[in-house]
Amino acid sequence: MGTTQLETVPEPKYWHLKTVLTEALDSEFSVGEILPNERDLAARFGVARATLRQALEQLELEGRLQRRRGVGTTVAPPRVGVAVGTEHHVWPGTAPDAWQSVDSTLDVPSAAVAGALETGHDEPVHIVRRSRMTHGQPVAAELLYIPQSSVPDLSAIDAPSGAARARAVLRELQRLGLEGQDSAVELGSARADDAKQLDRLPGAPVLVVTTRFFSQGRTAALSVATYRADTCRLTFGDSGGVEIHEDPERRAS
Amino acid sequence: MGTTQLETVPEPKYWHLKTVLTEALDSEFSVGEILPNERDLAARFGVARATLRQALEQLELEGRLQRRRGVGTTVAPPRVGVAVGTEHHVWPGTAPDAWQSVDSTLDVPSAAVAGALETGHDEPVHIVRRSRMTHGQPVAAELLYIPQSSVPDLSAIDAPSGAARARAVLRELQRLGLEGQDSAVELGSARADDAKQLDRLPGAPVLVVTTRFFSQGRTAALSVATYRADTCRLTFGDSGGVEIHEDPERRAS
Repeated sequence: MGTTQLETVPEPKYWHLKTVLTEALDSEFSVGEILPNERDLAARFGVARATLRQALEQLELEGRLQRRRGVGTTVAPPRVGVAVGTEHHVWPGTAPDAWQSVDSTLDVPSAAVAGALETGHDEPVHIVRRSRMTHGQPVAAELLYIPQSSVPDLSAIDAPSGAARARAVLRELQRLGLEGQDSAVELGSARADDAKQLDRLPGAPVLVVTTRFFSQGRTAALSVATYRADTCRLTFGDSGGVEIHEDPERRAS
Repeated sequence: MGTTQLETVPEPKYWHLKTVLTEALDSEFSVGEILPNERDLAARFGVARATLRQALEQLELEGRLQRRRGVGTTVAPPRVGVAVGTEHHVWPGTAPDAWQSVDSTLDVPSAAVAGALETGHDEPVHIVRRSRMTHGQPVAAELLYIPQSSVPDLSAIDAPSGAARARAVLRELQRLGLEGQDSAVELGSARADDAKQLDRLPGAPVLVVTTRFFSQGRTAALSVATYRADTCRLTFGDSGGVEIHEDPERRAS
């Protein structure tokens, strides 16, 4: 597996520091507490500030720390489990649904989205933007792409724009028979528009969940949802969530 | 949603550079091609090297670039879809299975794992290490925790250690009736042992999939699998994979 080379690479300094910091977080700090500033921390652990920063970045990746502008670095609460998979398939917007419609536009999607939807390259589709909140915090931003052929009876009269329009598009979509869905999860970075919705800066790490909804043998809708990677654990399956959280001690060992 | 403050924050310089770089990658470079060195790139785009590095890190997060020791920065191939969810639940190690057993030990797990398994704090459990390869590349490293009560008839005689022992543990586990399973996905960083197995450096971003297997009303086994976030897209659902990949143009817009 080509690991011989890696075996000779010594453990990076920040990695060891991360282990030490993790222990300190467990024993000395409580959730929400603000860490000392970088200079003091670097001095306490006898490391360069660049090394300290790398270790702090790692702990942020793992969801142990949060860095907030104007506040500083705080000890993060455990990640929130957010249910993504459903046992029985339902259309987006079918109650009970954790999402709120924000707005809806008719626009030409990217080539990749058009390809997945099998629409023509210049063919506009409905793009519904939705937002998901958990415990009062924004956790996900979604763009839902719906070809006009999936909602042929949609009229423009009742709700020309905004959240009401989005709900009208989803209502029409729900008239189709849903045959199945599949999802993929991957790491990404927040686009500017999603970042704003998620109360993050552009480029923040996110988990991107792409879901295809099938009806009449084709993709009737495509959802691209961006979840905050710092605060979310995505859950799939039978019982609505895995109780165990990543154990920091174990991961640092 | 508290976005007012963010709206006044200008788009970071590296973010704009990332957009420009993405366009250059699409139009001028092919998969596997080595990028010019950082000094030349910074000069070409008229930015500081620190800004360039931030943009390259973003593109690495998004799976567009790979940075390899001794090679440099190359244009990454599209991410590989790796099926994680299964329609019908099966025990780990049941064919067809993409995993290879590496070894098995009897050890006391972390407090979090012990809690999920409802074993006593000092009670050793079987820890099976497995490895998953796709297209000849290591894509995931897994630790599978199995309480001794789940495999009561396991004898130590036939296979005391190694991969054969791991297979013996899994064979015994498969004698239990599997009632269901659930999974959670979250962002993490590779531990030293997993990193070695994945041919990465410690701290590399990974997608951590935690799966609980239920039998007789309790958690009979717990899997903590670490997938390379740079090369993998985890797929769940009916049809074994979402064909669409994150569209770089769209994400950069």
